[in-house]
Amino acid sequence: MAATLIDSVVFCDLFSTQAMRDIFSDKQRVQYYLDVEAALAKVQARLGIIPEEAAKEICSHCNADEIDFVRLKAQTELIGYPVFGVVQQLVALCDKGLGQWCHWGTTTQDITDTATVLQIRAALELVETDVGAISIALAKLAKEYRDTPMVARSNLQQAVPITFGYKAAVWLAGFHRHQQRLEEIKKRALVGEFGGAAGNLASLGSQGLAVQVGIMEELKLGKPCIAWHTMRDRITEVACLLGLITGTLGKIALDIKLMAQTEVGEVSEPFTSGRGASSTMPQKHNPVSSVYISGIVPIIRQQVAALLNAMEEDHERATGTWEIEWVVLPEIFCLSAATLAQARFALSGLNVYPENMMRNLKLTGGQVSSEAVMMGLGPKIGREKAHDLVYQICCDAVESGQSFAELLKQNPEISANLSSSEVDELLDPKNYLGLCGEMVDQTLAGKER
Amino acid sequence: MAATLIDSVVFCDLFSTQAMRDIFSDKQRVQYYLDVEAALAKVQARLGIIPEEAAKEICSHCNADEIDFVRLKAQTELIGYPVFGVVQQLVALCDKGLGQWCHWGTTTQDITDTATVLQIRAALELVETDVGAISIALAKLAKEYRDTPMVARSNLQQAVPITFGYKAAVWLAGFHRHQQRLEEIKKRALVGEFGGAAGNLASLGSQGLAVQVGIMEELKLGKPCIAWHTMRDRITEVACLLGLITGTLGKIALDIKLMAQTEVGEVSEPFTSGRGASSTMPQKHNPVSSVYISGIVPIIRQQVAALLNAMEEDHERATGTWEIEWVVLPEIFCLSAATLAQARFALSGLNVYPENMMRNLKLTGGQVSSEAVMMGLGPKIGREKAHDLVYQICCDAVESGQSFAELLKQNPEISANLSSSEVDELLDPKNYLGLCGEMVDQTLAGKER
Amino acid sequence: MAATLIDSVVFCDLFSTQAMRDIFSDKQRVQYYLDVEAALAKVQARLGIIPEEAAKEICSHCNADEIDFVRLKAQTELIGYPVFGVVQQLVALCDKGLGQWCHWGTTTQDITDTATVLQIRAALELVETDVGAISIALAKLAKEYRDTPMVARSNLQQAVPITFGYKAAVWLAGFHRHQQRLEEIKKRALVGEFGGAAGNLASLGSQGLAVQVGIMEELKLGKPCIAWHTMRDRITEVACLLGLITGTLGKIALDIKLMAQTEVGEVSEPFTSGRGASSTMPQKHNPVSSVYISGIVPIIRQQVAALLNAMEEDHERATGTWEIEWVVLPEIFCLSAATLAQARFALSGLNVYPENMMRNLKLTGGQVSSEAVMMGLGPKIGREKAHDLVYQICCDAVESGQSFAELLKQNPEISANLSSSEVDELLDPKNYLGLCGEMVDQTLAGKER
Amino acid sequence: MAATLIDSVVFCDLFSTQAMRDIFSDKQRVQYYLDVEAALAKVQARLGIIPEEAAKEICSHCNADEIDFVRLKAQTELIGYPVFGVVQQLVALCDKGLGQWCHWGTTTQDITDTATVLQIRAALELVETDVGAISIALAKLAKEYRDTPMVARSNLQQAVPITFGYKAAVWLAGFHRHQQRLEEIKKRALVGEFGGAAGNLASLGSQGLAVQVGIMEELKLGKPCIAWHTMRDRITEVACLLGLITGTLGKIALDIKLMAQTEVGEVSEPFTSGRGASSTMPQKHNPVSSVYISGIVPIIRQQVAALLNAMEEDHERATGTWEIEWVVLPEIFCLSAATLAQARFALSGLNVYPENMMRNLKLTGGQVSSEAVMMGLGPKIGREKAHDLVYQICCDAVESGQSFAELLKQNPEISANLSSSEVDELLDPKNYLGLCGEMVDQTLAGKER
Repeated sequence: MAATLIDSVVFCDLFSTQAMRDIFSDKQRVQYYLDVEAALAKVQARLGIIPEEAAKEICSHCNADEIDFVRLKAQTELIGYPVFGVVQQLVALCDKGLGQWCHWGTTTQDITDTATVLQIRAALELVETDVGAISIALAKLAKEYRDTPMVARSNLQQAVPITFGYKAAVWLAGFHRHQQRLEEIKKRALVGEFGGAAGNLASLGSQGLAVQVGIMEELKLGKPCIAWHTMRDRITEVACLLGLITGTLGKIALDIKLMAQTEVGEVSEPFTSGRGASSTMPQKHNPVSSVYISGIVPIIRQQVAALLNAMEEDHERATGTWEIEWVVLPEIFCLSAATLAQARFALSGLNVYPENMMRNLKLTGGQVSSEAVMMGLGPKIGREKAHDLVYQICCDAVESGQSFAELLKQNPEISANLSSSEVDELLDPKNYLGLCGEMVDQTLAGKER
Repeated sequence: MAATLIDSVVFCDLFSTQAMRDIFSDKQRVQYYLDVEAALAKVQARLGIIPEEAAKEICSHCNADEIDFVRLKAQTELIGYPVFGVVQQLVALCDKGLGQWCHWGTTTQDITDTATVLQIRAALELVETDVGAISIALAKLAKEYRDTPMVARSNLQQAVPITFGYKAAVWLAGFHRHQQRLEEIKKRALVGEFGGAAGNLASLGSQGLAVQVGIMEELKLGKPCIAWHTMRDRITEVACLLGLITGTLGKIALDIKLMAQTEVGEVSEPFTSGRGASSTMPQKHNPVSSVYISGIVPIIRQQVAALLNAMEEDHERATGTWEIEWVVLPEIFCLSAATLAQARFALSGLNVYPENMMRNLKLTGGQVSSEAVMMGLGPKIGREKAHDLVYQICCDAVESGQSFAELLKQNPEISANLSSSEVDELLDPKNYLGLCGEMVDQTLAGKER
Repeated sequence: MAATLIDSVVFCDLFSTQAMRDIFSDKQRVQYYLDVEAALAKVQARLGIIPEEAAKEICSHCNADEIDFVRLKAQTELIGYPVFGVVQQLVALCDKGLGQWCHWGTTTQDITDTATVLQIRAALELVETDVGAISIALAKLAKEYRDTPMVARSNLQQAVPITFGYKAAVWLAGFHRHQQRLEEIKKRALVGEFGGAAGNLASLGSQGLAVQVGIMEELKLGKPCIAWHTMRDRITEVACLLGLITGTLGKIALDIKLMAQTEVGEVSEPFTSGRGASSTMPQKHNPVSSVYISGIVPIIRQQVAALLNAMEEDHERATGTWEIEWVVLPEIFCLSAATLAQARFALSGLNVYPENMMRNLKLTGGQVSSEAVMMGLGPKIGREKAHDLVYQICCDAVESGQSFAELLKQNPEISANLSSSEVDELLDPKNYLGLCGEMVDQTLAGKER
Repeated sequence: MAATLIDSVVFCDLFSTQAMRDIFSDKQRVQYYLDVEAALAKVQARLGIIPEEAAKEICSHCNADEIDFVRLKAQTELIGYPVFGVVQQLVALCDKGLGQWCHWGTTTQDITDTATVLQIRAALELVETDVGAISIALAKLAKEYRDTPMVARSNLQQAVPITFGYKAAVWLAGFHRHQQRLEEIKKRALVGEFGGAAGNLASLGSQGLAVQVGIMEELKLGKPCIAWHTMRDRITEVACLLGLITGTLGKIALDIKLMAQTEVGEVSEPFTSGRGASSTMPQKHNPVSSVYISGIVPIIRQQVAALLNAMEEDHERATGTWEIEWVVLPEIFCLSAATLAQARFALSGLNVYPENMMRNLKLTGGQVSSEAVMMGLGPKIGREKAHDLVYQICCDAVESGQSFAELLKQNPEISANLSSSEVDELLDPKNYLGLCGEMVDQTLAGKER
């Protein structure tokens, strides 16, 4: 049984998803190696570098099911890298010694890096799907609650009124940017590697570039202008993007957790019987998705730092730092997948309690609208004077426990400038929602700049 | 005197640059606040929200020289944020109570965020200049040493021949990608903030959006579709890019340090009398620039993680995590500037020793060309068999101390397939440089995909 | 003006303290260098290695006031290290060429490391003082509110009753452990360095160890058994301890922020007029100390990782990673000092609102005592059955909005086992505080194991 | 097949060890839960809280083999935590409804935390064993090569002579400190948890403390003075210690990699046929163990930061940050185990090449002994003057390619003070080893302070 939670029989689907684990599984990794070897053989046969017959025989065995993983483990432990072991097995699988023609003129890291890029391509597709679904869920929330008043909070203190749709639109705008980033990164990240031992294709003579072009076309990857064996910005940039996307999820999860507090009660995660139950406290419904997101995102940000560290590679093949990638890249994708899945679930079925939002808005007897009063008074008595006056009355209301509205109306300077009904008007949160609705609309329309 | 090395009178120019420190200095920060306040007043006067006279008076005092920083310190400590203190001073500086019209309908974070974006714009310009200069220096090295043989190293073991120009071109390709990233990030990073207390412009009634548009035009910044007070991916993405750029510098510095080892001696940093001297060991010339880069980059990657943490912001104004940005953003730019300056210096004047490169190439008596022999034998006796045979002769040469070339020639299986002069030909590193030159050329031409 | 917030004229006392900055200031650093040089000269004169007269002359100039820092900057930039520059100036300051005897047989890093240890000693003293003061404040809270009921929260959901004194005692127990750690670390951290260029004291012949012993006695530091120039666990362990201490502060600050929410209102930070005010929302009193702690602690944990990275030092003097320490060590102490000062302030004057705690306890109509009911029913109908039954009634109460107490009493299975007044008794939070008081007492008594 | 390298069928023993994985496997984790439940039942029966018969029945099923892990997965996903699921299964396994008495008065986190401490205890034992074995290997190297000259390196430049035994003793001294730390940490780390829902043992009435004491005695763990459910310094301190220990391994691995460079050749890792082979470059023998250590340690330091983050826990049961620990603690131990195993292997069989060390010492024609010359001249012409003179001759030797010894002898100022044979004497590295031997001896004897 597994020692990591990602591969745990108990926890695997809380800390990753099946689809993402499949991409990074031992078997699929080896399959990607074999896909690259097959592409290589095919292209080299086409160019007359290896016999057509050899290519056919090689391709017919480029199937991870034929690999003996127990033997591969022993080989990998001896050599330090798995590709050579896979190649040795592939050679042995081929009939008539034709396997000798496989892996022709290439190097371990060409195969590994290109396989990694194939993993990244598949993994980014999953990420994109979830990012898309989350955007749709957020857009739905933004639209549905476009005009539902709630209180904005600053420093965890009630501040001024907004709407819940506005809050969701702020979240959504972040996801629009992530979609843009996902698009832009592909041209840098989805580029294969093929250069031989030191990247200069020395082992393939004059046909090196033709082979390189052929493989990349075969695999539908970008062609590198030069080897990136030890220039890992392509990979680390992907990690940074995962850090940014899950960073946004961390923010959303935090907001949900805070709104779901017993004392706040403005939202709750989708509820199914028993979900988030406590062994001792039957009244509890824990915000499970947000909890997992909040627990995973801090790990991901450290993995980004680890992958930045992995850029510190020496010479033409690194002496250790490359291995950072081996460990961290699968995990950062698996953990990210878990946060995306949790967010998708929680946001798609989020329970929203507009009446509790309104109750909280009223909790301070109108003080959340003190800015409105201040802005109403400002043009008459000056902004700073208005601030100081309203500020003082707030303090008095807090200290005395008296009604803020009453204290405002009783104040001679205020009553000289605002009628009682004008004060009430200003204090009504619904009248101080500003452009929440318009901003929701322009975010949904994706307008920026 | 300062407690940080960045501001130290002794170390400041080793761990940052004057130009970058200026952007993040107390005074310049306040000046950016005042620039935003001035833009606000100007636009609001134009739209008739505040009196023209007030705007003139306000703008005439939007000068950091007029700010009392000792008082500002006291104000900031009391309130927790500096903007309100600046505004209070600005109000007091204005004649006839006209200051009352400043900061109209906006909030602390609008000013701070927009000022931060102005800092980022200025700072990215410095970064771009250095990235450009480094690219030029690398291109020069790639061209000049396009055909200068040296040994590629894998796992710090000599591997196969390459050229030093090729090595420089690999570095250069990373910088080409950084230039592309710098261009793409601007549309997301250089967007201002203006939304009032909770971002919904409630305090400005129907004219909110017009004011917002006006300010962004005034400051030549992008206009946000919605507030990003607590959605900080824009900022953190900048940090990630700095992490990527300096990550590449870390790799280059590592290569230089390794090549500059006494036992290797292939390059040395530009030398000026006394530079890198030791108080005790007069023979030493330390690779000072690479040392500083290597010391700073690990700090930067942790700062990236800190700024990912800063994304975890609650509700509409964060309760602490925003402050992470305050501390880290100036430092990550200052430290990055130091690494860029050091790299620019070291790479522009790098001393290269082709004869030592050749000496090292010959160190193993031709074993660095064993792949060439293997590839020469492969078509005749099979790739794997060739590998095993050459591998065994290498081991024999290492163990016995005998000449690799001689052992090859004495081997009956090899001599049956390769003549003595063919063996010599294959062992000459100059004959196994592959496409190093072509790859230099296509990297200089910037071709990818 | 400074570019870092730590040295900022505006922010310095929010992100550090004067006392801590003094220890790491340029001047004090140089003073520590000179203290070590003076100790060296004194000891070497005593041992007859250098003339008595030279030692007197040298010591008389070991005063940072005599150092020209502008020149030192230039020297440091040339050489890469500051100590040699200080020595050059010291030599020049001495009369009759006696300065030639200073820095005899030692190396840059001996002086730097020993000076660093002197900084650490002074800095740890400040930390210890604050940790002590915080412990006292926490003990006071634990005692005063030993029996003040409040609700415990799990997953931000109300759980069961505890007391506020108990909560404070949990915090306190962490500080007791920190005091223990602070004591234990000294024997490893407060050890000087003196070994010459490579640590083997070759330059001092047979008297090397006598000089080493003498210096350490002079400076009241531990004597190393062997050089630790590139074995930095002593330093990094200090960083880890700061990470642990401030990690605890982060937890406490989080609790305070959550309890200080408008909707919760159980505590507030010490209030002085204007503190934590908003430029726009006059009703707000932000939990400023907790905000700063929450903003700084995430930076500190990244600095711990940076200092772990600084352990990766090559050979006998590192090629870059040592510099990580130079930058990070002063900052981690400065930032830690700020969090300690803020915590000391906030905890010493924390406002506690027992009536709000009680109000929140009652918010769920007794559901926070559902465990009590379950435990009361358990012995009669079985623990799991009791759990499921009470769990169901909780759900019903939440869904229907009916009184939890009433639903309990109406349930036939419950009423068959518990009388109405027994149910009321079980639901009273004051009856379900368990051993809160005893645990406060034993924590105050410091009992563990 | 696994997605993580730790659980990979191919890589598992490169990135962890079987023994460490066993401790953190799904099954063993559940077994530890059951061990705690069994201890609880036993103690509660002894105290008369639950029937003796129940305890017997419960204990008889506290065997992970009886747990249905597929069902446990479903339960865990529903509830969010695994313990309740295990308890439900345990209840069902017990005959005659006696299972109702299990998990009496405790909470999920009591079981989880105590199980985690049991894992930590077992894992630290493995760590201690390896730390001990590494110390023995290092002591052996230090003794054997006590007087074997090699060059010390500073900034990757040759500096002065030392011995390889001295270098090994520097490494060893770090391990002596780690052994001390491992001893000291136990009293804080090996303390169980038992407090019920909020830690106040409310559910157990007056017998709570007796149960707590009983369980801790049963499990041979320390008794907590108060709950530490959300005060995680105990756990994070363990992570810090692993960071420190593996940080030292990272330094040693770096030194080995550098010494094993083709151009340096002073050590090589234990060699077995095929180990560290390349698929393309038959002459290579990669320093595989050091490579893995270097690749893993950077991940571990990020995990330390993640676990510092995990301290940021809210209230009495955290809303997410606890989960950081779940993921990271098993991985940091597994990865640490791999580095310890690799280090133990590499250091126990390290090949050392004294003749190459001597060859390198002579590489600069005596410049590595320039300090000796300087120290020899110092008493005669003054230290600074001697430095400048020798420094100039070094520069001349480097530039002209002439013999350093000859240039020294030709210099009139030097020849006036030192005879030719005195110069030769001073330049012989064996004469400038200083106290290397004595320091080895006192390190082996473990003397400090």
